[in-house]
Amino acid sequence: VSALYSYTGRAHTIGVTGSPGTGKSTLVNEIAKKIREQQLRVGIVAVDPSSPFTGGALLGDRVRMRDLSGDDGIFIRSMASRGRLGGLAQSTSDVVKILDAAGYEVILVETVGAGQAEVDISSATHTTLVVEAPGMGDEIQTIKAGILEIADILVVNKSDRPGSKQTVQALKMMLHMGMGSVVHHGRFSKRQENNKPDSDYDKVWLIPVCETIAIDGKGIDQLVDAIFEHNDHLQKSGEWLTRERARSRLEIQELLKTGFLDKLQAIIPEAERERVVSDVAERRIDPYTAVSRLFDQAGV
Amino acid sequence: VSALYSYTGRAHTIGVTGSPGTGKSTLVNEIAKKIREQQLRVGIVAVDPSSPFTGGALLGDRVRMRDLSGDDGIFIRSMASRGRLGGLAQSTSDVVKILDAAGYEVILVETVGAGQAEVDISSATHTTLVVEAPGMGDEIQTIKAGILEIADILVVNKSDRPGSKQTVQALKMMLHMGMGSVVHHGRFSKRQENNKPDSDYDKVWLIPVCETIAIDGKGIDQLVDAIFEHNDHLQKSGEWLTRERARSRLEIQELLKTGFLDKLQAIIPEAERERVVSDVAERRIDPYTAVSRLFDQAGV
Repeated sequence: VSALYSYTGRAHTIGVTGSPGTGKSTLVNEIAKKIREQQLRVGIVAVDPSSPFTGGALLGDRVRMRDLSGDDGIFIRSMASRGRLGGLAQSTSDVVKILDAAGYEVILVETVGAGQAEVDISSATHTTLVVEAPGMGDEIQTIKAGILEIADILVVNKSDRPGSKQTVQALKMMLHMGMGSVVHHGRFSKRQENNKPDSDYDKVWLIPVCETIAIDGKGIDQLVDAIFEHNDHLQKSGEWLTRERARSRLEIQELLKTGFLDKLQAIIPEAERERVVSDVAERRIDPYTAVSRLFDQAGV
Repeated sequence: VSALYSYTGRAHTIGVTGSPGTGKSTLVNEIAKKIREQQLRVGIVAVDPSSPFTGGALLGDRVRMRDLSGDDGIFIRSMASRGRLGGLAQSTSDVVKILDAAGYEVILVETVGAGQAEVDISSATHTTLVVEAPGMGDEIQTIKAGILEIADILVVNKSDRPGSKQTVQALKMMLHMGMGSVVHHGRFSKRQENNKPDSDYDKVWLIPVCETIAIDGKGIDQLVDAIFEHNDHLQKSGEWLTRERARSRLEIQELLKTGFLDKLQAIIPEAERERVVSDVAERRIDPYTAVSRLFDQAGV
């Protein structure tokens, strides 16, 4: 991956996130098919940080991707976690780099759940889609899980379900209130500022709310248009580079942290490290003092 | 917190996790009320890693906790994240320590979502409850999001809803298949082994599936019984200490990682660090080489 790195940076990476049951996988399929019509090569990376046993054991969503296989212009890779997320985030990032270097113009990274994984993936991609579905609990719950502040595009999928209009309205109201807007991980502020002077027009991205019925292929045209418009916005506003810098900063930090633990393991013998763990577990020493002693031992 | 640490280690910490809409907060309230009847002091820490703006801005679930306020034996604290989860996990862990040292015998830690946050919180608590609700999507979705492998007790809340029996059956089937069972973060294996020799009886914990209707207070007695039985199991099997060691190991690692980044910031000037970020973002250098140079500069 190190040698490949200089060939990366051309792909448009798109994170797709949302709660289970929102139909993310079907949506990702339909987006991929639509983008393929423009002769662009599409990579799909499906990340499941919540489950260590989905990697092939349970067929799940990927079954629905059958109609994409056989197309050389589409590459699909599932990533399941066995252990720490840090490792998963890094290996996902490596797969994205490999696809990027291999000439895939668009890379879709799909994640399940609502939590830190999404925030990390949003920091690692150019465009973040947050998928909601009507009837997934009351509005406040939707909002809580909505991780709105990381969305570049909001998607209400299964929009033929009852309650869809209310979900769309609730999301639009929140955007109007300026909620989908905080500066995040050093990313360019996405605050909805309707009163911005014209000269800054290119710098303002008004988060659209797209309604889709992925299973029938409905609304996908408009959604893919919004994705390409966001790409255009990133280029014109200079935010593409801002996001590349944020992604790079985060990746360097992660590599420094895991690299440091590896180095420490080489410096301090295992028996010694385990003794410290026991001392903390049995309250003979507090963790802060323990860590400060380990730093001293490592000469850092 | 450092000075308090030697007074901690007495509280039974209980993580409560599950998707939005499962009724976790109401359930946590009811558990707290039931435990209070036994004259035990209860701390509640509600953690929301998915949303930086819930800390008081949106009332949300906490509104439902009103009937608990006014009781000196219950302490409630909401934690919302602004920034990295690492920080949130550490501050949650600190609040738990303070409550522990202050003499709260039972501490409930509630988190939303399905992802790394849950795994981290499960590593930081003695007993993990995973809450499901019927009708949250199809069974496979439930399973994917179920993060079964971290559960000590499964709860099907809103069990008066249609589809409840199927959800309970699906969960029991999965437990029978040995799915709620992998060794996780060095925790004692929870594999359901029905053929275990009798001498190991104390070491086997058969994950129960509890049915509740939290809003009506139904099924809470049995659930609280299961919680106390799990505590008993942890003590008798020696797993209490195993989990304390796992928690300590994780906390030491996290403190080492964040501590190292702080030290690096003191050693390498900001302008220099930002230049490395630009070099990586603009593909002049790959992140692995960049990090290895930073280690050299820091003399590690």
